[in-house]
Formats: sequence, C-alpha cells, structure tokens
Amino acid sequence: MKNYLSISDIDNLSEWVKEAQKLKANPKADKKLGADKTICLLFFNNSLRTRLSTQKAAMNLGMEVMVMNFGNEGWALEYGDGTIMNQNTSEHIKEAAQVVSQFCDIVAIRAFASLTDKEQDEAEVVLNGFKKYTSIPIVNMESSVGHPLQALADAITMEEQKTKVKPKVVLSWAPHPKALPHAVANSFVEMMQLQEADFVITHPEGYELNEAISKNTTIEYDQKKALENADFVYVKNWSSYTDYGNVSNQDSNWMMTMEKLGSAKFMHCLPVRRNVVVEDAVLDSEQSLVIEQANNRTYAAQIVLKKILESLSKR
Amino acid sequence: MKNYLSISDIDNLSEWVKEAQKLKANPKADKKLGADKTICLLFFNNSLRTRLSTQKAAMNLGMEVMVMNFGNEGWALEYGDGTIMNQNTSEHIKEAAQVVSQFCDIVAIRAFASLTDKEQDEAEVVLNGFKKYTSIPIVNMESSVGHPLQALADAITMEEQKTKVKPKVVLSWAPHPKALPHAVANSFVEMMQLQEADFVITHPEGYELNEAISKNTTIEYDQKKALENADFVYVKNWSSYTDYGNVSNQDSNWMMTMEKLGSAKFMHCLPVRRNVVVEDAVLDSEQSLVIEQANNRTYAAQIVLKKILESLSKR
Amino acid sequence: MKNYLSISDIDNLSEWVKEAQKLKANPKADKKLGADKTICLLFFNNSLRTRLSTQKAAMNLGMEVMVMNFGNEGWALEYGDGTIMNQNTSEHIKEAAQVVSQFCDIVAIRAFASLTDKEQDEAEVVLNGFKKYTSIPIVNMESSVGHPLQALADAITMEEQKTKVKPKVVLSWAPHPKALPHAVANSFVEMMQLQEADFVITHPEGYELNEAISKNTTIEYDQKKALENADFVYVKNWSSYTDYGNVSNQDSNWMMTMEKLGSAKFMHCLPVRRNVVVEDAVLDSEQSLVIEQANNRTYAAQIVLKKILESLSKR
Repeated sequence: MKNYLSISDIDNLSEWVKEAQKLKANPKADKKLGADKTICLLFFNNSLRTRLSTQKAAMNLGMEVMVMNFGNEGWALEYGDGTIMNQNTSEHIKEAAQVVSQFCDIVAIRAFASLTDKEQDEAEVVLNGFKKYTSIPIVNMESSVGHPLQALADAITMEEQKTKVKPKVVLSWAPHPKALPHAVANSFVEMMQLQEADFVITHPEGYELNEAISKNTTIEYDQKKALENADFVYVKNWSSYTDYGNVSNQDSNWMMTMEKLGSAKFMHCLPVRRNVVVEDAVLDSEQSLVIEQANNRTYAAQIVLKKILESLSKR
Repeated sequence: MKNYLSISDIDNLSEWVKEAQKLKANPKADKKLGADKTICLLFFNNSLRTRLSTQKAAMNLGMEVMVMNFGNEGWALEYGDGTIMNQNTSEHIKEAAQVVSQFCDIVAIRAFASLTDKEQDEAEVVLNGFKKYTSIPIVNMESSVGHPLQALADAITMEEQKTKVKPKVVLSWAPHPKALPHAVANSFVEMMQLQEADFVITHPEGYELNEAISKNTTIEYDQKKALENADFVYVKNWSSYTDYGNVSNQDSNWMMTMEKLGSAKFMHCLPVRRNVVVEDAVLDSEQSLVIEQANNRTYAAQIVLKKILESLSKR
Repeated sequence: MKNYLSISDIDNLSEWVKEAQKLKANPKADKKLGADKTICLLFFNNSLRTRLSTQKAAMNLGMEVMVMNFGNEGWALEYGDGTIMNQNTSEHIKEAAQVVSQFCDIVAIRAFASLTDKEQDEAEVVLNGFKKYTSIPIVNMESSVGHPLQALADAITMEEQKTKVKPKVVLSWAPHPKALPHAVANSFVEMMQLQEADFVITHPEGYELNEAISKNTTIEYDQKKALENADFVYVKNWSSYTDYGNVSNQDSNWMMTMEKLGSAKFMHCLPVRRNVVVEDAVLDSEQSLVIEQANNRTYAAQIVLKKILESLSKR
C-alpha cells in the first residue's frame, strides 16, 4: 500500500480489522518494524484524538514522530498554479510538499474543509497537493471529504460489538450550532458500503450527502422509522451539502435520546456536544461505544502505518 | 501511589527527597522502568520549567512523551453537568478525560486558576474532572490551588542547602503588576508544614492565604520583623484571596533587597520580575537558589513519575 | 567546538562538507553518539525546514529532542540590564537561559531580526543572551544577522553540484512585498568568502549589505552583467540595511527568470514566493537546486550536532 487517503485504499477490510485486533492485544509486537523510520504529523487544524492516537500508534511501531501545527508554526501555503505570490501566502505547496518528504518516511495530514468553497474543498488541495508533489506515503488524518482513520476505527468497534452477521446500522443526522464538514459521515457511509449490513441514512430533507458517495444507500427522512430495530446508531451532524456549508436546520427533535435509541449501540466520532447532538443519558449509558471508538483510533492508525511500513521495506 | 495531585500524596517526604537526590546523581539509572510507557503532558496554560523538566524527567525514565497545548491544539472543554452545549465548548471533560486516558499510561495537567471565580477555581474543575473520569494516574503540573512539583523541588533544594536541623524559613509576599494565583504559595506552605522548620509568612494585611491551607502558621505583617535571622526567604507574589483575585497593593517597599535578605538564602519559583519582586542584586548574588530550584524540578518530577511507574508495574 | 553561532565556528569547511556527505550516505551511522543527550529547540519565530531538519538530524544521532515555541508556549523575555520589569516581560533572559541549560545538553535557537531596531538586532539579544548566561553549547537556527545552518547546507549542495574548481557564483537580490531580514544573505556571503569561487553580489543601489560582512566582495548593480557566465545563482530578497528594514524597491525586473538564469544552477533557501522572487519556470526546471538545498539542511545540522557531541564527550 502506498497511501491511506480514503477507505478505498483498504484492500481487504475484514483482514485489516482482524490484524488491528491483534495489534490491540499486543500493541508493541511490531516495535522493530518502524525503527529508524520517521513520521511527520502535519496539522492544519486542531485535533485531540487524531493527534494522540496517531502519535501513539507510530510509537507503538517504534517510529520517530515529528508533530507540526502547520498554521501556527510554519508558513501560509499557496495552492494555485501560476499565482503571483505577492499577497498572504509565503510558500507554494510544490516546495512545501517536496521539502517535508525529505525529512520523513511517512507524512500524515489533517486539513479540514473550508465549507465556503465547495469546488476547492472537493479538490482536496492540501492532501492532493502533497500527493502530487511528494514521493513518500501519505496518511489522511481528516481531509475535506473524508476521515478514513475514523471509519476504520468504527469498523473495528462494530466488529467487536456486533451480535449478528448482518446488523442494522443507522447514520442519524443531529443538530449542531456550527457548520461542520461532511468528512466523518462520508467515510462512515463508504465503510458501511463495504460491510455486510442493513444500512440506512436519516436526516432532514436538504441534508443529503454527496450522491457520488451515498450512491444507492437508503435515505429515510423519518428518523423514527429509520431507527426501528437498529443495532447500531451512528449520530453525526453535518452542514448542508447541496446548499454548501449552510446550517438551515437546528431542530432539537433530531437530537438522539435513550427513547429513540432503544436497545441499539450508540456511536459518535467525538468531540460531541452533549444535550445538543445527543442527550447525557445516551452517552452515560452502557450502550455508548464512543470511548471504545476513540480507543480503537490507535489500532486503526497502527494497522495503516504497519501496512505502509511493510510496503516501504519491500521496496 | 496513584496520583500526584497535592503535597498530601507524598507518603514519606524525607525518603522522597533522598531518592530524588539519588536520581540527580544518576538520572538515567531507571531508564528501563518507563519502557513502553507513555506520558501525556496537557497544558491549558503556558509553561517553561514545568514543560521542559517534566519531559526531561519522563525521558530519563525511558518513557515516551506526548505534549499537547490543549487550548490551542484541541477543543474548548465543558465542565458543567447537564449543560446544553450549544455555546462555545465543543467537548465535555467526561469524554476528553476518558479518551486521553486511553492513549497514555500517565497524564500530567497544567490548568491555572482563573482568579475570577473562586468557587470554580477551588473546585479544580480541570484536574478533578480528569481525576473523576480517567482511570490512569494524574500528575498536577500546577492547578488552581497547588503546584506540588514546585514545592517538592523546593524541599529538595532546601535539604541540599540547609546548615541546621531546624532553619528559619520566611515566605515573603512581593508586589507584582498582575493578578497571580495562590498555587505556588499554597503548596510551599503545605510543604513547610511537613518540615522541621521555624516557618513564618509575611504579607500586607488583606493578603492572607486560604486559612484552610495556612492553618496555624505564624503570620507576621511586619516584613522586617519576619525576616530577622531568616535562613531561607521564599519570595512570591499572589493576589488577594479574601478579595479574590484583586490586586490592591503594589507597594514596592515589599520588594526583596539584599539589605532585607541579610545572610539568608533566596528562593523563588520563577519566572520572576526583576526589580519589582526582587532587586537584581539578590538574584545575581550567590545567596540566590533560584537556578538550583529550577534544576531540581527535573528530579522532583522524576521521583513522582518513578513512584507512579512502580505502582503501575505492581498492578 | 563549543557553539555554532556563525560561519566562523567552522574550523575546516571542506572537511565538514565531506563529513556531512558521509552522514548523508549513512544517516544513522552515529546513532549511539547522542544517546542520553537532549537537545532543546527554542523557536521565537516560525519555521518549517529548520524545525524538521534539526529534529531529524538530532534523532539520526540518537538524541532526545524537546521542541518549544517560546513565544506562544512560554513567557515574554526581558533582555535589558537593570530593567524594572513592571511592563510586558515576565522573565529575564538571565534566568531563562540558565534554566533551559539545565534541562538539556545542547540548545538551538531561532530568533529573527525585528528590522525595526538595528542596534538591538545587531546585538543579537536572544542568541547572545543565551550565550552569555548558559553553560551549554548553542546552535543558531537563524538569528538577526546570520543563518549558518542554511549556509552550510548551501555549501554541501554546491560541492555536490559544481563542475569546476572555481565556479562563478552570483547572489542576486529579488523583490518581495514584505521586509525580510539579512540573515540568509549575510551567512551566504560569509560562506562564499571561505570558498574558491568567483563571487559577485548584485542588487539595486541602496540595498548594500552590512559592509562589515560583505567586505571587499564585488558588487555589480547591473544584474544582467553580474549574471554573465554564472554557474550558480543564489536569489534572495532582503530589506534595506542602510535605511534599516525599509522596502523602497519592489521592481519586478529584478525577479529571476529562465532567460536571465541561462545555464546556471538556481539556489534559494525557501520559502520562496513564486512569480515574485523567481518565475515558475526556474523553480520547475532541472536547474533548480532548492529541494536539494532543503534536503541538505538535515546533514548540515547533523554535522554541527555531531561536532558538538564529540566535544561534549571529550570534556
């Protein structure tokens, strides 16, 4: 495997999940694999779980880690071709990407959607800029359109928790005061499309995700109906995709409650706003998997890095 | 030992001081103790000495270190129970604490007093939030009401420097242009209460520390009288505790001078404002112990981490 | 060697360049040299290449690394002697320097010129403050007046790329919208004075560098004439030195182009503003050495740290 940019870079999901579970049982087993290899984590946006779990995963594999908050610590980057750079950007992605790739063996990047310019967000200028100009493997730590490390952690969590071969899984939109990206929802949808599951998305009308991603996944606008007999309920807010980045709906009736959840397991990527996205009772119940999802972020990152390191050593 | 939250977590001070001195003589002696163990340093406030000395102590013990500036790099945390989180906080301490504890074996936290809300400061919402919701050991890197790593370094320094069994020690308030917390003064007072010493606090009227901490320690409002025959003079500013967080007195007559110091040793936790808190001549004299206090921060942190690691390995 | 503050700390340039090339061929060869040694990287300004390459170099040598963004994470420092510190500075360089030196074996510092106060910039208050009050070796990661790690990387790059014993080298000023320091240009000039080369500086009148540095180096105000038969063209903007920090000229005729470059190799320290300092065609051509210069930053830092570590082990 060269890069881990999206779910489609997983060649065999069930095998990856099994290997991740092995790593979880024995996190330091491959500590020699990453010896004398360096990973650089570049954050263009804030991060808690991704920051710590990816560092931890790399250290479990014996790698050296360099963390950089690109926005505060480095230079404002230019992405346009042919730009006369006499304004606010000090360095072009062409140079930045090539330069960074000389100081490490793997680069991991977090760069959120702006939610103001759909075209630019979908072009994934930061991630694809690095992909275009760098020679080393790239790991997506959440980009404009995807968060595949989260989705992989979610798959590991569901594998651990499921009690039937083909569970019913519902992705349920929730209200939120701020405009949030589609990345987590997108990657979860893509992940579910690889799984044996009865998968439904529920959200208010006008909150349809990109059809190129949701494809023929069932959309049920009636949340109550969607949640019937659910085994897993994944709750997440996103802003409008069609009316790009807009927050037209903050209807608290969409908040997840114990009553709505029934006996299903509750999932969320975190951070989560309590009593806005989901009521306290759900998060504080034994049905909540959110802490275990976060825990599995380490092993999702670790299996990804392990696959990349194995590819590197074969070259 | 589980946590190091305050001086009261030290089970045997004189033994800890002796062990710290052994570590100082041979800092890498226990390098295998922390192998494959990770510490996460979470800074909610700025730090120089604590940042570097705690990292250094952890590395001396062979630990892996992750440093995070929570305010800039993560999410604004909510501490209230039952809050409808539709305002500025993005993540609840319940989730944050549980999540962080999955990525490391020990968490160290710095979270200063606000000095605006006494009740909230005394509740130590950050430190106690982590204590309540995390399963891993916690180290206090300065909280609202205490700075026990500093006080332990001070105890090591005094042990090295004292020339009599029961020295006279004076904690002398000093003027400062900004409102400063009580944490350093509190922990120093608590530390002195464990020591064989003739201990006096001197400060202007109205600057009494929390009586629950100062207890029956002698308070002498006449600085000159307090300083008579002192062996150690610990100088520190703090804002008013009774008129919480207020700076009603900036009287430069309280500044420490060579004349006032006499032949005593001078101590301060740093950073210190020269010629406001203490005159240049004192800091530049051989009677100043401030650099050695800072040096001992490493061994204070190291003995704390060593004790915790030893507890972990017994579980 | 004690410190690496400027080019003049290199005792034998050609030998250093050869050793750096050996390290480049086998970066981990000296991994035991830095065992149990700690380097602290203190950034008073932003950094990409220096931040990553110096960390990487230290890790290649087996060192432990602590990175601190002094401005955001620590305290505002005072540099004046005798100052009554009742304003914005919280800690004096005297304490800060002594304290930091207790937590590490080597300290590396980046502190740019202010470009507003020539006298203070030339006094190098940060770097010289650390030099004055610290006992440990200091590495200059770009100061007010020099960037000797960059110049050493440039020397390595030129050694790799030169096709004649005495190449013609031109330092060519370029326009830029912001006022930039003289550090890179200064150190490059000093480096060229140690090399066998036909060296010319070209810039608009009024942009003369400090004569104490340029000495008797040829200055040719006619860029075209200067560039004739050049083998290496080093392009760099700097603000006026005589009219200190002023940007009186932004004439785009000084931008480097393929036409002007001819068959010469192009060099720049990065970050570079495309189509302002140099046109795209130059950076995208095979004549551009900028990525290799950045790559050699690691080995420049590594040979410097290696020399210092060897000195330390002899003490």
